[in-house]
Amino acid sequence: MKKYKAYLIDLDGTMYRGSEPIPEAVQFVNQLRERGIPHLYMTNNSTSSPETVAERLAGMGVKCEADQVMTTSLATARYLHEQTPAASVYVVGEQGLEEALEGYGFRLTENEPDAVVMGLDRGITYDKLSKATEAVRNGAMFISTNEDAAVPTEQGFHPGNGALTAVVTTASQKNPKFIGKPQPIMVDMAMQALGLSKDEVALIGDNYDTDILAGVRAGIDTIHVNTGVTSREAAAAKETPPVCQVETLAEWAEYL
Amino acid sequence: MKKYKAYLIDLDGTMYRGSEPIPEAVQFVNQLRERGIPHLYMTNNSTSSPETVAERLAGMGVKCEADQVMTTSLATARYLHEQTPAASVYVVGEQGLEEALEGYGFRLTENEPDAVVMGLDRGITYDKLSKATEAVRNGAMFISTNEDAAVPTEQGFHPGNGALTAVVTTASQKNPKFIGKPQPIMVDMAMQALGLSKDEVALIGDNYDTDILAGVRAGIDTIHVNTGVTSREAAAAKETPPVCQVETLAEWAEYL
Repeated sequence: MKKYKAYLIDLDGTMYRGSEPIPEAVQFVNQLRERGIPHLYMTNNSTSSPETVAERLAGMGVKCEADQVMTTSLATARYLHEQTPAASVYVVGEQGLEEALEGYGFRLTENEPDAVVMGLDRGITYDKLSKATEAVRNGAMFISTNEDAAVPTEQGFHPGNGALTAVVTTASQKNPKFIGKPQPIMVDMAMQALGLSKDEVALIGDNYDTDILAGVRAGIDTIHVNTGVTSREAAAAKETPPVCQVETLAEWAEYL
Repeated sequence: MKKYKAYLIDLDGTMYRGSEPIPEAVQFVNQLRERGIPHLYMTNNSTSSPETVAERLAGMGVKCEADQVMTTSLATARYLHEQTPAASVYVVGEQGLEEALEGYGFRLTENEPDAVVMGLDRGITYDKLSKATEAVRNGAMFISTNEDAAVPTEQGFHPGNGALTAVVTTASQKNPKFIGKPQPIMVDMAMQALGLSKDEVALIGDNYDTDILAGVRAGIDTIHVNTGVTSREAAAAKETPPVCQVETLAEWAEYL
C-alpha cells in the first residue's frame, strides 16, 4: 500500500457518530500524531468554530489543535476574502460563520451588502430570508457554506443548509457558489496549508457524496471507511470508486 | 367576440396592484354584477380568508360576497377533504390556511400527522420546517398551496410559498402536490361551483405563468389583461398564447 505523507479526515461518521466517538478512528489519529504525520480535519459543519470542534474532539480522546480543523465557515470566509476582501456581508448563519467572517475582517451589514453568505441557521426567520432574497436579486454575490440537504439529529433528519439555501435560490432565481464538500475548494485550501503535492495526501471519509467526491474532484486519493453514511458496497459501485476501502481505520494503521 | 356566461378572475395584477385598485377592472366587475353575470375570484394568496379578501375588495369599490372568492387555502382544504377527510394535519402557514382546514373539520396536530400542508408563513421557524421535514420523510402526504417563487412587497420581492416549500422538498427528497395556479385544480373546482360547461366560461388574468397557464391546463378560454406581471408581447409569444388580449378590462366590457 502507498504511504501517504498527510491525511485529510472527515469528522461526522468518520471520527464519531453524533456524540459517540469511533474508537478505531480515535486510536488511528492518535497514532498519526505520535508519528508526526500531518493531518487536518474537514467538516461541512458551519455552526461551530475550529476551537469548539477541537474541544469536542479532545472530549473524545483526540489530541488536536484548532488550526488542524477546517470548517466550511472558515473556508467560506477565506474564499470570500480571496475574491473580494473589502466586501460588506449579510450573514444568515450561526456564531461559527459570523466569527469566521469577522476573523477575516468583513463588515457585517443588513443594508445593501456586497455579498450574502448562508450557513445553517436554526434561528432562521422570514425576515432573514427576505433580506437575503432582496440582496441577491439586487446583485449581491451569493455564497453558501454547503449544499447538505438534511442533517441527522436525535429527533430524525432536519433541514440542512442546502435546504435553507433553496429558499433564496428559488426566490431569486440565482444559484449560490457552494463551498463545502463535495466541492473541491476545502480540499484545495487544505492542500495549500499542508504544502504537499496531490499524490502525497489522502482524504478519509465515510460519505461518498460529500467526502469522497470532494477528494475525487480535487484530484487526490480517497479512502472510504465503512463507519458512516455510505455502505462499502454502495461506495464501490460508484462510477469513480474510492481508491481504498476499509471497515474501520484500525485497518489503515498498518499502512502508516 | 364570443359571449361568455361566467368569468374566473385573478386578483393581484388584475383587480389591483398591491393596495391600489385598477379602476377599469373595478368598473368591469361592477358591470358583471349589475348584469347578473356570475364571476368568481381566484387567488394564490393563502394567508387571507375569503371574508378578508371580500372586505379588501369592498374597500376598493368592488361589491362581492365571500363565497365569490376562492383562495388556495380553501382549495387545498377541499382537495385534502376529497382525498382523505379524516386526516390529521400539520400546518405550516398563516391564519387563512388554518381556518380553511378547520372549516373542513381537519384535526391539526404536530405529532405524527397524516398530511403536511404548507402555505406562505411569515412566522416560519426552523422548528416548523424540521417538523414538516420529519413528517414527510416518515410518509405523510405532502401538499403545498402554491409554487409561487417570490411575492411582491413594498420592500421588494420576498420569498413566496414555493420557495419555503423548497426547504422541505430538498430535505425530504419528496415533491409536494401543489394546488394553486398554474395547476388546474382551482379552475376545476370553480367550474363545479358555477355548474357551467368549459366552453361557457373564461378566465381573466395578468400573469401568464400562473393565471393563463391554469386556464390552458384546465381547458377553458383565457383573457390576458396587460395590467400586471406578463407583458402583452410576452404572453402573445408563448407556445399556447391566451385566447384574447386586452390592455385593460374596459376593452372587454364591450363584449359582455
